[in-house]
Amino acid sequence: MFSVDLNSDIGESFGAYKLGDDDAILQHITACNVACGWHAGDPMVMDRVVRVAAERGVAVGAHPGYPDLMGFGRRVMKLSFAEAKNYVKYQLGALSAFTTTYGTKIHHCAPHGAMGNMCQDDRDLARAICEAVYEIDPEIIIYYCAGAVLGEEAEKIGLRAACEIFADRAYEDDLSLRSRKLEGSMITDEDVAIARCIRMIKEGKVTSYSGKELDIKGDTLCVHGDGPKAIAFVKRISEAFTKEGIEIKAF
Amino acid sequence: MFSVDLNSDIGESFGAYKLGDDDAILQHITACNVACGWHAGDPMVMDRVVRVAAERGVAVGAHPGYPDLMGFGRRVMKLSFAEAKNYVKYQLGALSAFTTTYGTKIHHCAPHGAMGNMCQDDRDLARAICEAVYEIDPEIIIYYCAGAVLGEEAEKIGLRAACEIFADRAYEDDLSLRSRKLEGSMITDEDVAIARCIRMIKEGKVTSYSGKELDIKGDTLCVHGDGPKAIAFVKRISEAFTKEGIEIKAF
Amino acid sequence: MFSVDLNSDIGESFGAYKLGDDDAILQHITACNVACGWHAGDPMVMDRVVRVAAERGVAVGAHPGYPDLMGFGRRVMKLSFAEAKNYVKYQLGALSAFTTTYGTKIHHCAPHGAMGNMCQDDRDLARAICEAVYEIDPEIIIYYCAGAVLGEEAEKIGLRAACEIFADRAYEDDLSLRSRKLEGSMITDEDVAIARCIRMIKEGKVTSYSGKELDIKGDTLCVHGDGPKAIAFVKRISEAFTKEGIEIKAF
Amino acid sequence: MFSVDLNSDIGESFGAYKLGDDDAILQHITACNVACGWHAGDPMVMDRVVRVAAERGVAVGAHPGYPDLMGFGRRVMKLSFAEAKNYVKYQLGALSAFTTTYGTKIHHCAPHGAMGNMCQDDRDLARAICEAVYEIDPEIIIYYCAGAVLGEEAEKIGLRAACEIFADRAYEDDLSLRSRKLEGSMITDEDVAIARCIRMIKEGKVTSYSGKELDIKGDTLCVHGDGPKAIAFVKRISEAFTKEGIEIKAF
Repeated sequence: MFSVDLNSDIGESFGAYKLGDDDAILQHITACNVACGWHAGDPMVMDRVVRVAAERGVAVGAHPGYPDLMGFGRRVMKLSFAEAKNYVKYQLGALSAFTTTYGTKIHHCAPHGAMGNMCQDDRDLARAICEAVYEIDPEIIIYYCAGAVLGEEAEKIGLRAACEIFADRAYEDDLSLRSRKLEGSMITDEDVAIARCIRMIKEGKVTSYSGKELDIKGDTLCVHGDGPKAIAFVKRISEAFTKEGIEIKAF
Repeated sequence: MFSVDLNSDIGESFGAYKLGDDDAILQHITACNVACGWHAGDPMVMDRVVRVAAERGVAVGAHPGYPDLMGFGRRVMKLSFAEAKNYVKYQLGALSAFTTTYGTKIHHCAPHGAMGNMCQDDRDLARAICEAVYEIDPEIIIYYCAGAVLGEEAEKIGLRAACEIFADRAYEDDLSLRSRKLEGSMITDEDVAIARCIRMIKEGKVTSYSGKELDIKGDTLCVHGDGPKAIAFVKRISEAFTKEGIEIKAF
Repeated sequence: MFSVDLNSDIGESFGAYKLGDDDAILQHITACNVACGWHAGDPMVMDRVVRVAAERGVAVGAHPGYPDLMGFGRRVMKLSFAEAKNYVKYQLGALSAFTTTYGTKIHHCAPHGAMGNMCQDDRDLARAICEAVYEIDPEIIIYYCAGAVLGEEAEKIGLRAACEIFADRAYEDDLSLRSRKLEGSMITDEDVAIARCIRMIKEGKVTSYSGKELDIKGDTLCVHGDGPKAIAFVKRISEAFTKEGIEIKAF
Repeated sequence: MFSVDLNSDIGESFGAYKLGDDDAILQHITACNVACGWHAGDPMVMDRVVRVAAERGVAVGAHPGYPDLMGFGRRVMKLSFAEAKNYVKYQLGALSAFTTTYGTKIHHCAPHGAMGNMCQDDRDLARAICEAVYEIDPEIIIYYCAGAVLGEEAEKIGLRAACEIFADRAYEDDLSLRSRKLEGSMITDEDVAIARCIRMIKEGKVTSYSGKELDIKGDTLCVHGDGPKAIAFVKRISEAFTKEGIEIKAF
């Protein structure tokens, strides 16, 4: 029996600023990555999305990021090991106030933006994140992008790790996502995208941009909730998975 | 047998900015109020002070404040009930990441600065803080200033509450601290200050600035760690307590 | 000959967060109030809106607010006189970098949100703002809401002041805006709203919610650019003004 | 006739946090680099130091940094060209509010911390800073560390540039400062330090750590004001300069 988790970044509003339609996407996913107030999110937003996620049985994950609200956590910052570790710890702790309130727990941790991207090959940063998570709760799962050293570091320290795949993105030969700045980075044909996902989940294989056959683990699929078109695609891919006998459930 | 808790605000450094001598004061107190990164403190500072406090057996409390680093949390801000509640929750959660790391728990919560002062008579704010604390962990104790509605709201909701007294401050007839802007606000004679504390703890009485005899509960005494003179006073008052048969221990 | 200025708050986006349609409203107004990076706005946003405003000949004003991005500057904060003065000065200075770049100058200053509301009767705050403005450039005009002490303080110090009116809001007997929490606060009938504006501009009169005839100066009308309906209303009221012989130009 | 400028970073306090003794060092220098509220400093601090500097005839420079108060602007952040340019512009504008108040102007711009260090070889960043400065006021001088591309970019765009030297630091063969992490990075012998400075100013030569003779321009010497020992050294080096016929004056 095959299964896949559908995850999405949520709780990215801040104060008067609204981003995404958290309520809509929470109806279609099995896990959410909640911004923790540093690159996005605030306590009012966190309280709301954790409550709704808990009510719907969606697994709540932490989505920690750099202390860079103005850059939405998308800009590289060079932190020391101790800074990265304590910053992640702080954000997980903050989120735990709301999971505790609503009778659930932090299920996973998926670093955001530049912090997430840097975990592709920055072993120190990846290790710092894993230590932070492990010291708070060794049951928390690390969500890592295919090919990232973050997955290796998680397993090394004794954390479970879920490999995240993308429906709409091309892969390079090292499993990194093809840069959005390059031609062919996006898979725009929905049928192709869906077929690729099914193959990643069932066969553990994907064809890279250059044409190589790569091994990949499709544990959790990242989906987006920004706008009716995105939501429609989530519904479509969910139906395709069900038809293919792929169960949709949290990792 | 009489007893008193000695508490102090710590962890108020931020990044390159150092404030207070946390290590020195942690050798003399039984409970500490740790800034949670909003009005002061950052994850590096929190990690360090919680570790040292845990090593020394000092009870770790949260010291949440307004989101006003530039004003050190000392300026009145008008928050909604939900904002106050979620902001306090966020800060307690953040601190819990570090207490969990060092195998301890949040022992108490003492609101900081303007937030603390407003709890003297703002029943909504006091209630919001108590709900936040209760929903995270009903074992957490509320530290409130003598006369504050915060103490009443804590007990109403089912939280234990410790009444905080000050050695160096005069009281008005309603148990509020006499404003520093007014004459006679400070008790500058150390012998008088110590005698007043002993009376508050053993007899539950204090003489107000105007000369009235007031009932007061001396559960926890706030002491300061800024400079050698402050530390010397803490030692002196501790010795006096011991001589008087007052045990110094966390509430 | 009658004239009126049409002003709108713009530049309230921040980083990844978008708010309002600055380009659309800039086609219909004669003055804009630009957020200065404290309660909203950032240097990228400021650069863009000042450039577009300068290109279109729209007078650029500063819209300083409290250091409270999370609350969008809408929450009361109690600042000292010197804090308020220096905070406003800082924000005006920051904006001047962009007006200088695009060959224009700061035309006016309109305090935002809670800071603006408090200028209705907080004479100290009003004075602090006026001193800040005067010391930077005594040619800068103060935009104040009808009835606010801000207008009086501006004239006392030697600044010109423009009285701001609202098309869609009811007035109390002291010229303050009727609270949105109360019934009848909004003028929902567009024809009524337009007729009221024309009377305020040409006759200097408005009927309060309670029915009193009040004197009012209609120097500048605040309009909104959030959504096609708001833009359509701005067009409609502009046409009505032109028909009535009211020239639309910056104060 | 030889001359040198003595500059120091000041205005790095923030809210309740005090850093350095601005008043003391302002008695001994000819130019100051004022933090602009992003990595350090706030409007109250800026107002005070600009006032004192203006009173003493010390040239006021901007010391812009990354938006990273928690890291004191010392951590690498990867900004886009437009972000770097607009962030610097914003900070210079903010400072100009205070120079205008006290009847002076921004004399120079010296990027802080990681932003400054990256100007050693990041030509895009250096260009962005120079464009920001030039568009605000082409009379503002760029202070650059010896060997930095910032100096070349300044001259390319048409700005004057002053080469900054350090008394207490060893130089590598490319004129970069020898990393503090390496042995021999600091010149600890005060007599040696002073003799090196005199030679840099009068002969335009310095011996690198490896023993090479390098060309260097000693336009402005960076001195520190943190503690009595630092102030004493500033006095000593000033006396030595005077004896050697080197006039101490702003660039």
